[in-house]
Amino acid sequence: MRVDVLTLFPDMFDGVFSASILGKARDKGLVELNTVNFRDYANNKHNTVDDYPYGGGGGMVLKAEPIFSAVEALTGSLAGGSKPRIILMCPQGEPFSQRKAEELSKEEHLIFICGHYEGYDERIREHLVTDELSIGDYVLTGGELPAMVVIDSVVRLRPGVLGNETSAVTDSFSTGLLEYPHYTRPVQFREWEVPEILVSGHHANIEQWRRRQAIWRTWQKRPELLEHVELTAKEKQWLEEQKRQS
Amino acid sequence: MRVDVLTLFPDMFDGVFSASILGKARDKGLVELNTVNFRDYANNKHNTVDDYPYGGGGGMVLKAEPIFSAVEALTGSLAGGSKPRIILMCPQGEPFSQRKAEELSKEEHLIFICGHYEGYDERIREHLVTDELSIGDYVLTGGELPAMVVIDSVVRLRPGVLGNETSAVTDSFSTGLLEYPHYTRPVQFREWEVPEILVSGHHANIEQWRRRQAIWRTWQKRPELLEHVELTAKEKQWLEEQKRQS
Repeated sequence: MRVDVLTLFPDMFDGVFSASILGKARDKGLVELNTVNFRDYANNKHNTVDDYPYGGGGGMVLKAEPIFSAVEALTGSLAGGSKPRIILMCPQGEPFSQRKAEELSKEEHLIFICGHYEGYDERIREHLVTDELSIGDYVLTGGELPAMVVIDSVVRLRPGVLGNETSAVTDSFSTGLLEYPHYTRPVQFREWEVPEILVSGHHANIEQWRRRQAIWRTWQKRPELLEHVELTAKEKQWLEEQKRQS
Repeated sequence: MRVDVLTLFPDMFDGVFSASILGKARDKGLVELNTVNFRDYANNKHNTVDDYPYGGGGGMVLKAEPIFSAVEALTGSLAGGSKPRIILMCPQGEPFSQRKAEELSKEEHLIFICGHYEGYDERIREHLVTDELSIGDYVLTGGELPAMVVIDSVVRLRPGVLGNETSAVTDSFSTGLLEYPHYTRPVQFREWEVPEILVSGHHANIEQWRRRQAIWRTWQKRPELLEHVELTAKEKQWLEEQKRQS
């Protein structure tokens, strides 16, 4: 898999692309991670990549030409008919989700376009990009952090990337429920002890306790997630009892 | 404002904390950004920060002690009664939002705890942290990128940080609508022209066009956002007409 990121701040990516899972995936040759400063494609003497908006108003707008040229320089060098996904990070994009991460992890080439406290010329959106993504309804200073988030979640799904490092966190997320509580040594830390059942050795009881904790926590914190989880009749009955008692 | 991040991967933060808005805010002395490797607080001869879960199962669990010790080293050095917010980045946290960013931007000290493909000992959650945050329902390899996202969105709200760099993107987000389309020079890029109205000079018409474009785009892409926006009677009527025609 090859990932190219168009940004005016390539240095922002150094630490994230070198450390942890992404750094290891890169070292193992499982993914090529590349940043492109699209200011290099400005094609005017002041290297300008933005300009005032037609129709007036505050803020600046990223020009179409440098971004088209940068993308075309990347795709022009591709052998044959490989079609990359060209992803615009922007607040009005499709909300990013685990389903979308899975979809993108099957691609061979992703190009991310990151704006920075500016709008994009609409012609980029209409005639160049294949996807527009937002990671959430909060305001950030640019598309760089959102691109890193998407790249991390996508690359970790590629075969061979995670190895044995898959975690309880991941596993429990994939059930559609929030995580059950985890505990590790010591049994007593300060005045707080591990729940007795976890040191009982009764595996079936532990499984049931964990599942019910996960259900209860999901109901308390994110009840809307429960709509997508299949509960057994017994679990539904238990949950109703808990609600009555709480 | 002071921000401390507890992480096993402090290098991941270098590029992001030095570049762009965060770097400038730091240079201007508006925010102190600091990383702490909590492995330094492991207090055992192999510097172990994780261990197997009680009750069995896959994955590892971050131990309570190193994280408690690292936080206490930070807060113990504080003068007087200043109480930091201690924020755990985790998939089952409260969904992060712009409202939460505004709330956190009023604090003087934030401490972020970032796990990495592992669970947290539940005693950290119960007896140490004040907030649990998630940036979205997708699986990432650790809490580092989510912490950067939260820090970016919070720091940009601090007085003096943004200066004149506030953008059209931000402004239009704050209306509760998605952005209207932006265009900048040239009027014709390849075969694609800027909408005539934007070069008409009729400011009232331009304002109306932009507002309606924002409404229409929001209805098409994120209809649930429209529930929170006050439309005039005329705008509602126009939207209904558009729906009939499309």
